[in-house]
Amino acid sequence: MLSLTVTPRFAETDALGHINNTVLPVWFEQGRHSIFSAVHPSMSIDDWPLILAKMSVDFVAQIFFGEEVVIRTGIEKIGNSSMVVKHEAWQRDQLVARGDAIMVYFDYQTNQSATIPPEIRERLAPIMINA
Amino acid sequence: MLSLTVTPRFAETDALGHINNTVLPVWFEQGRHSIFSAVHPSMSIDDWPLILAKMSVDFVAQIFFGEEVVIRTGIEKIGNSSMVVKHEAWQRDQLVARGDAIMVYFDYQTNQSATIPPEIRERLAPIMINA
Amino acid sequence: MLSLTVTPRFAETDALGHINNTVLPVWFEQGRHSIFSAVHPSMSIDDWPLILAKMSVDFVAQIFFGEEVVIRTGIEKIGNSSMVVKHEAWQRDQLVARGDAIMVYFDYQTNQSATIPPEIRERLAPIMINA
Amino acid sequence: MLSLTVTPRFAETDALGHINNTVLPVWFEQGRHSIFSAVHPSMSIDDWPLILAKMSVDFVAQIFFGEEVVIRTGIEKIGNSSMVVKHEAWQRDQLVARGDAIMVYFDYQTNQSATIPPEIRERLAPIMINA
Repeated sequence: MLSLTVTPRFAETDALGHINNTVLPVWFEQGRHSIFSAVHPSMSIDDWPLILAKMSVDFVAQIFFGEEVVIRTGIEKIGNSSMVVKHEAWQRDQLVARGDAIMVYFDYQTNQSATIPPEIRERLAPIMINA
Repeated sequence: MLSLTVTPRFAETDALGHINNTVLPVWFEQGRHSIFSAVHPSMSIDDWPLILAKMSVDFVAQIFFGEEVVIRTGIEKIGNSSMVVKHEAWQRDQLVARGDAIMVYFDYQTNQSATIPPEIRERLAPIMINA
Repeated sequence: MLSLTVTPRFAETDALGHINNTVLPVWFEQGRHSIFSAVHPSMSIDDWPLILAKMSVDFVAQIFFGEEVVIRTGIEKIGNSSMVVKHEAWQRDQLVARGDAIMVYFDYQTNQSATIPPEIRERLAPIMINA
Repeated sequence: MLSLTVTPRFAETDALGHINNTVLPVWFEQGRHSIFSAVHPSMSIDDWPLILAKMSVDFVAQIFFGEEVVIRTGIEKIGNSSMVVKHEAWQRDQLVARGDAIMVYFDYQTNQSATIPPEIRERLAPIMINA
């Protein structure tokens, strides 16, 4: 899985003294930046070809301000037009959250999902879990 | 289900021109404020008795800036120490997203989940779906 | 001044138990939605004619979770191509924050500031402070 | 000045295709983490001794998704109980935003500002601009 280190921000804490639950989807989206650029190397917005269909987060342990968090991201499965992405958040060598995201390859011209072409599958291959 | 109307904020849009996916967990958490106050009427932070264990969001349609969104929230099921909350987001009378949240009643003194007492179940009853 | 009521969100608190300072610019931007629509009634993104040049916030008192906040917004001065906007945040009938924003009327075709035309000045007139 | 590199997040863009203005206060607060730990090495929330009194941001140029931003932070001046912090944001070797923050050393026991003690001034010295 790809690794990304994030520094929890004071603005990301909440009144209970830990990182608020709504921050995890933001960190996990940042974990998908590498998938964005593999699918769409130009990163141009005008022909952006991905839609998020679903996401979920499991909160395993409290996440603290003051210590870095490692976000691990990998693709579990690629179907005809969609893929399942797995995320994990680790702090102090402990798994603190994990999540899934289902992304759909999308053609804004026809306004529907499209078959992921072979050259994109090749670029995604190194991000596959167990690749 | 309880209804809450939110105005999408310009800061909540993203470069694709719609509301960013990470905003839905924030709106849905705001939808749970009513559950927070039913469980914990004092709303005091020092003895806050709830933990979020899991959440998921299904993105059904694009959400636009410039038109209000109605967040509907209800409790599907209450177990011994946890509850399953259902959320929906509606814009222009169309379902645009839906989600689940599993909340655990938690005793910070013993640091473990606790049985939801009868008086809290009574206050939650009107928020039950199909109540 | 125009009034907008916002409900502080749990995700907007921070570890100190109050609303985090970075939330005020978000609320104040929402206060400017009315100015956006007066300047640019179509609200279409493609020909959006406003740029934020500067903003500041004075933090007067702690802002609490659990009680509504009223955001008051008015235009202090309109120049040739820019305007000075004043914001206030009130909670429990107490001023808790105030801020300024300088917005520039901008022509993306020529990529420079442009003279605010008379019909826009007319639509802005009711939002002027002391109007 | 201290340097911190941040990766603009997709969730931080807005419909105009650039980083939303409300993100700068979040990045600048992260720039102040080093000041937080110099003032309050334990970083414990219970006796947190700092309050933000005022902040301002000047938006110099558009900030793009897809390229890193360097946040530079330094203390311009330390008074009896407060300090003036300067921030800059650089992208592609261009200054894209700058800002100020006034922080007050605060005693929550007496609920008022307090004199910054010599040992804290010593730890802050290396963060002074032109130090």
